[in-house]
Amino acid sequence: MQITRKFHFSASHRVYNPALNDEENCRIYGKCSNPNGHGHNYEMDVTVSGEVDPETGFVMDLSEIKLLVEKEIIDKVDHKNLNIDVDFMSGVLPSAENIALKFWEQIEPKINGPGIRLHSIMIRETVNNSVTYMGKQ
Amino acid sequence: MQITRKFHFSASHRVYNPALNDEENCRIYGKCSNPNGHGHNYEMDVTVSGEVDPETGFVMDLSEIKLLVEKEIIDKVDHKNLNIDVDFMSGVLPSAENIALKFWEQIEPKINGPGIRLHSIMIRETVNNSVTYMGKQ
Amino acid sequence: MQITRKFHFSASHRVYNPALNDEENCRIYGKCSNPNGHGHNYEMDVTVSGEVDPETGFVMDLSEIKLLVEKEIIDKVDHKNLNIDVDFMSGVLPSAENIALKFWEQIEPKINGPGIRLHSIMIRETVNNSVTYMGKQ
Amino acid sequence: MQITRKFHFSASHRVYNPALNDEENCRIYGKCSNPNGHGHNYEMDVTVSGEVDPETGFVMDLSEIKLLVEKEIIDKVDHKNLNIDVDFMSGVLPSAENIALKFWEQIEPKINGPGIRLHSIMIRETVNNSVTYMGKQ
Amino acid sequence: MQITRKFHFSASHRVYNPALNDEENCRIYGKCSNPNGHGHNYEMDVTVSGEVDPETGFVMDLSEIKLLVEKEIIDKVDHKNLNIDVDFMSGVLPSAENIALKFWEQIEPKINGPGIRLHSIMIRETVNNSVTYMGKQ
Amino acid sequence: MQITRKFHFSASHRVYNPALNDEENCRIYGKCSNPNGHGHNYEMDVTVSGEVDPETGFVMDLSEIKLLVEKEIIDKVDHKNLNIDVDFMSGVLPSAENIALKFWEQIEPKINGPGIRLHSIMIRETVNNSVTYMGKQ
Repeated sequence: MQITRKFHFSASHRVYNPALNDEENCRIYGKCSNPNGHGHNYEMDVTVSGEVDPETGFVMDLSEIKLLVEKEIIDKVDHKNLNIDVDFMSGVLPSAENIALKFWEQIEPKINGPGIRLHSIMIRETVNNSVTYMGKQ
Repeated sequence: MQITRKFHFSASHRVYNPALNDEENCRIYGKCSNPNGHGHNYEMDVTVSGEVDPETGFVMDLSEIKLLVEKEIIDKVDHKNLNIDVDFMSGVLPSAENIALKFWEQIEPKINGPGIRLHSIMIRETVNNSVTYMGKQ
Repeated sequence: MQITRKFHFSASHRVYNPALNDEENCRIYGKCSNPNGHGHNYEMDVTVSGEVDPETGFVMDLSEIKLLVEKEIIDKVDHKNLNIDVDFMSGVLPSAENIALKFWEQIEPKINGPGIRLHSIMIRETVNNSVTYMGKQ
Repeated sequence: MQITRKFHFSASHRVYNPALNDEENCRIYGKCSNPNGHGHNYEMDVTVSGEVDPETGFVMDLSEIKLLVEKEIIDKVDHKNLNIDVDFMSGVLPSAENIALKFWEQIEPKINGPGIRLHSIMIRETVNNSVTYMGKQ
Repeated sequence: MQITRKFHFSASHRVYNPALNDEENCRIYGKCSNPNGHGHNYEMDVTVSGEVDPETGFVMDLSEIKLLVEKEIIDKVDHKNLNIDVDFMSGVLPSAENIALKFWEQIEPKINGPGIRLHSIMIRETVNNSVTYMGKQ
Repeated sequence: MQITRKFHFSASHRVYNPALNDEENCRIYGKCSNPNGHGHNYEMDVTVSGEVDPETGFVMDLSEIKLLVEKEIIDKVDHKNLNIDVDFMSGVLPSAENIALKFWEQIEPKINGPGIRLHSIMIRETVNNSVTYMGKQ
């Protein structure tokens, strides 16, 4: 059984690799590499898998997931600049893929428990683009 | 190949465990345990997997799935109280997880056939909360 | 200029007129009159119209609208039974139309001010059904 | 008859008034005033009203509106910083209200013609917040 | 008070004017003029305005609107070719604007009554394109 | 890590098997077998799986996927008749299942590379019906 909680946050970023020069960044990232940044309303689905607890009828209380993700992720990234303002993104190129990887690191150790696993994190960056990370396999 | 048909139904429920006292129910279920109940527009995705029949071009006719699910599930739960009005939910705590489990029991034996399996049932309870059940594994 | 804030709440209701007998209620309201009630995820758009304040760039701070509507409406109706649990709905048949009318009464006097008017309240009861109230005209 | 074309763009902004000090900006704009900015996926509906041309069956060719709005607006704001990168937003506090006003100024003179009027611009900044401008009245 | 019921139908059409030659049709309608047609999932909102009946709590029973629109429109256009299969579209160029006009003619005389008016018909042809007709004014 | 790009196209089709007579086609396909065809706005999700490139932060540049899918699929099917106008659909019954299979054949050889696999193609034909193909397994 999988349970999913959806979150939203709004953030700015600039997608560029400081190890490359401007021309290379422009070739790889195009308009995403605009020096003054741009931004998105990100949508995130956090999915947890496990067995249903016969007493509560829940895999895990979704409000626990909500509180955990708000504290560990949303409060740190919402209305922020992902290149500058977020401690755990420091030095990380803020592609959607890397955002998903870093978010996974923040919450996976705090969700996994007896019979409970973080299953996936889906990040939707625009109406057309999204990524899903399901951990190392 | 997986094929999916979406359904909607509107129902009320009260999430509480009669084996627990009021204080414990309030601690576990919070506002979901309001004695006079509350309700939702549930969205359900029923997904069936199988091979494509070369003659029809279909895995299974989606209108067959529609008729089956409407008869076995929607007609029994739409505009109903899940704690009181639904025979197959009797004595079951109507969490989204248990709703998915019980719906699976109603239709799985009638869908599975040569080369056809019920793959998953997704229940979305609110814009932010959903569960997906994929059978015993 | 119009500004709109969207809200969600989940509630149960039974649509019936106590002045009518069961047969008449069943004829008028059909399955909406199920004695044990049913429920919905309601979506609500609150729209305010006015001039843009040149200093703030806002017609009205949307977070003020959020706090007001949460206090006066959402906290009273979310995860509640609209026939029983809501003081300002007492004795009111909870059709979508009457919900919009009663919600208007709760917030209109507190929103209207110099250059600011409550413009409309939209209530979406299901994916297919909605109502919009724009005040007495 | 009204016809509407939807557009999307992603941009960053910082909502603050340079005439105010940091404390006042923080009080008025809260987290929207984060010094390093944040961003959104903006959704925009451009609505034009007029009579149906009996020969073409159109009020106005929607692909003309598309080309005009892409040239005059989208190409200038998509993947940009609204405080820094957009000529016609220079010195303008980039609230959703002011964005709608400035966009209106860019396209209204080029759309209005015999029997054709720009009717409204809707800007949705987040899933919950939107503004609609319908011109001076 | 306005009440709205949403409908969906899937149809094919070819947008071309038989009074024009192929070259002119191609210039005006582009890919919409493909000789073998193309198609859409149309979404339609039918909005009726009126006073709330104090006995029923309704402006008009939405299931009456549903039955009327299904009989007069949906049953005739769903899974059909709008250029060939629909009696009331005969000889009409099936632009979204003309679809809205012809649909209005089918249902307006049957909806209007004491205190009840057909307010508008919205036709969404694609995720980006829509039209709204509100009658002769 | 999976990355997904969404596409839209509008097309008409007639679902029928030329090896069967009219009566049999009508029994199997019902209204989908209307001789003059009907149409849909198709939504398609193309999902690719692979490792994140440490230099770019991408699994694969989504704009490469966009260009490939537009060239190999969208340009050939958008605003077309799937029974007549599309070379790679020639002689194929255009059910959603077969559309997904044929689209897979067009792009899979051009996407797969070191560490990169086409993971799935999802085709949504209407708001309620969709199919997902994940290759031969």
